[in-house]
Amino acid sequence: MSDVAEETRHRIETAGRAARAASKRLALLSRAEKDTALLTLADAVEAASATIVAANEEDLARGAAGGMSESLQDRLRMTPERVTQVAQALRDLAALPDPVGEVTRGNTLANGLQIKQVRVPMGVVGMIYEARPNVTVDAAGLGLKSGNAMILRGGSAAAATNAAIVEALRASYEQQELPADAVQLLDGGHDDVTALITARGLVDLVIPRGGAALIEAVVTGSSVPVIETGTGNVHVYVDRAADLDMALDITVNSKTHRPSVCNAAESLLVHADVAETFLPRVLTELAERGVVLHADERAAALAGGVATQPVTDEAWGTEFHGLEMSVGVVDSLDGAIAHIDGYSTHHTDCIVTEDRPAARTFAAQVDSAVVMINASTRFTDGGEFGFGAEIGISTQKLHARGPMALAELTTTKWIVDGDGQIR
Amino acid sequence: MSDVAEETRHRIETAGRAARAASKRLALLSRAEKDTALLTLADAVEAASATIVAANEEDLARGAAGGMSESLQDRLRMTPERVTQVAQALRDLAALPDPVGEVTRGNTLANGLQIKQVRVPMGVVGMIYEARPNVTVDAAGLGLKSGNAMILRGGSAAAATNAAIVEALRASYEQQELPADAVQLLDGGHDDVTALITARGLVDLVIPRGGAALIEAVVTGSSVPVIETGTGNVHVYVDRAADLDMALDITVNSKTHRPSVCNAAESLLVHADVAETFLPRVLTELAERGVVLHADERAAALAGGVATQPVTDEAWGTEFHGLEMSVGVVDSLDGAIAHIDGYSTHHTDCIVTEDRPAARTFAAQVDSAVVMINASTRFTDGGEFGFGAEIGISTQKLHARGPMALAELTTTKWIVDGDGQIR
Repeated sequence: MSDVAEETRHRIETAGRAARAASKRLALLSRAEKDTALLTLADAVEAASATIVAANEEDLARGAAGGMSESLQDRLRMTPERVTQVAQALRDLAALPDPVGEVTRGNTLANGLQIKQVRVPMGVVGMIYEARPNVTVDAAGLGLKSGNAMILRGGSAAAATNAAIVEALRASYEQQELPADAVQLLDGGHDDVTALITARGLVDLVIPRGGAALIEAVVTGSSVPVIETGTGNVHVYVDRAADLDMALDITVNSKTHRPSVCNAAESLLVHADVAETFLPRVLTELAERGVVLHADERAAALAGGVATQPVTDEAWGTEFHGLEMSVGVVDSLDGAIAHIDGYSTHHTDCIVTEDRPAARTFAAQVDSAVVMINASTRFTDGGEFGFGAEIGISTQKLHARGPMALAELTTTKWIVDGDGQIR
Repeated sequence: MSDVAEETRHRIETAGRAARAASKRLALLSRAEKDTALLTLADAVEAASATIVAANEEDLARGAAGGMSESLQDRLRMTPERVTQVAQALRDLAALPDPVGEVTRGNTLANGLQIKQVRVPMGVVGMIYEARPNVTVDAAGLGLKSGNAMILRGGSAAAATNAAIVEALRASYEQQELPADAVQLLDGGHDDVTALITARGLVDLVIPRGGAALIEAVVTGSSVPVIETGTGNVHVYVDRAADLDMALDITVNSKTHRPSVCNAAESLLVHADVAETFLPRVLTELAERGVVLHADERAAALAGGVATQPVTDEAWGTEFHGLEMSVGVVDSLDGAIAHIDGYSTHHTDCIVTEDRPAARTFAAQVDSAVVMINASTRFTDGGEFGFGAEIGISTQKLHARGPMALAELTTTKWIVDGDGQIR
């Protein structure tokens, strides 16, 4: 902490106090006021499309000059069509129910006290994320709908794009006579992050969203509450009682549908009883789709001529973010569960089986945010779950686990209504 | 972190792994099995009563020799009657519903996927607390009922008492052929705490329960998830529209019913319109009960002859833990809310009023875990709320806010049940 310059700490504290003041106004907005504001923000983002795209071209040119990969450039790119999409996401948020004010528990006590637990905004939420600029708009919109002021720290690769987006949003807030500090963008160096995650009392929650190194740094360095998101070393286990056609579809979809994201599968475990039938089929299919295969000895022997390389302990523990997969044979359901227990990041793990007791045991014993039974791991997603939006996928156990959306950006407050009760 | 001896870190990691193994068995116990185990533990604690009382006498003698205050000795003391009481608390837990397995949300998606969110144990919970040995039994019982293995670090003042209690509990677990590592006691030095709160991956949650310095040290030093508990700078605001008889009862009860605990009031704010009538009455009553009064100039002038000392900024910010109170006059409801916003620890704050809009505004704008309307602040308590037990009172916003009991010791897991869905 002491290595953060006084100027930086002062700047972050100023931002935190401005966010706190804004959050007090946001907390008191009605659903109708928030939805109107979201629709107006959407229009403002679309109206700023040319500016945002021009700023994005700066970022892209700098990235290309610095040797940024094509796939990262694609994640970073904002075309006019993508600007329209992110504006639409704000309009979609307006259509969702307001999480604030929901009564989550309540009771009248024997002494006549009426107690109720009500959802209220967190207050000030910090978000630290990497390249994709659509996250900037999503976070601002989710923040407004849940009544929170957002302090955003995007990746330096998207600095100009994020600045253009946030400028458009803040100008719109001002025009609407709402507090512009509902969304603030930090554009300083790494010290900004350090100051943000140690701003106790000023920031109620920090959500890091990005690679494992970013998340580790935030979790270890923070003294404010943090929700870990994202890292997914995801397993598919094909049980002895699996429907093997279904298992083939689920494995291929889980691995190849969008291999760069956190809910893509990284490891395949096959029960020994079906390995001889299933492995040649699935490995051939995976190899045809360009998947590099790391196989244990038993799986390699059943690869049906497909080239594999020996799987290492490191490979079992790796989230590849691409077309690679670790493959192994297990002798039992317990063996699969023990393997998953050892290597999973507890994001999503899947069993394919027609056997009820096996499914029940797997669901009970695999300690992950999402346990899939006979479904692709790609379904771990706020949109797929019907949340209408997503701010990340929590892999921790405190507060939120799995896809996080509006409700997860709130806390609760107890309101106790009496007529003079004393103890 | 680096200043923890290798031996200590190794010992804590061993404890963490043993707890993890135990937690896997606890997570699969049925409610009936857990309730039977709780009743058996209760009998074991009662059977060890003489041993526990003898150990407690050691602790008390050491404390008295070291100059421990009478009130702290009283908190530490375990008589045969108190042993019976803590055993009864275990039996009471057996009568409560099992939080594990509760379905908290669920839905069938358009594609036929059946998703449900189910309460599951956290896994391994660390608890760091100070003198009262009944917390040792409560924590063990709450842990068992919620399916968690507990790693306990009690205060050194209660070392012998806690060791005797945990020995009895562990022996009972073994006799029942349940894992004794469901409850472990750390008895090393301060390094044990440091190692525990940085044991990422081994400990799912740490709950510090004690004074502000303990909580600050844990929150700042930890890299595992933490729930802050307890510190309560609690306010009573007497509105211009208060029933002044009710306000008198609530103020006196909130301050004097049990002044050492966190839900006792520390500050009294009185609206200027009723100050002249109310202050002489309430200050006289408080003074008669031995409350030392810190008053602002306007309150002092209306003290009706009661001696007061000038209130300082420090006094407004102090949780006295005893018979002292800060008193001031405010000109408006907004003034009261602003004062509370500046000084409250956001534990519990109370308004006394017969005015509906005032109550509604206070409840909406005071950002505390519990907002009381016309009721003593002493009602912020898991037992009073009907939770049947309490592990602490959270003053943070993440995961749990206000009194914490069984549900707050659980997390959730999504189980997604499909028949071959892919994206």
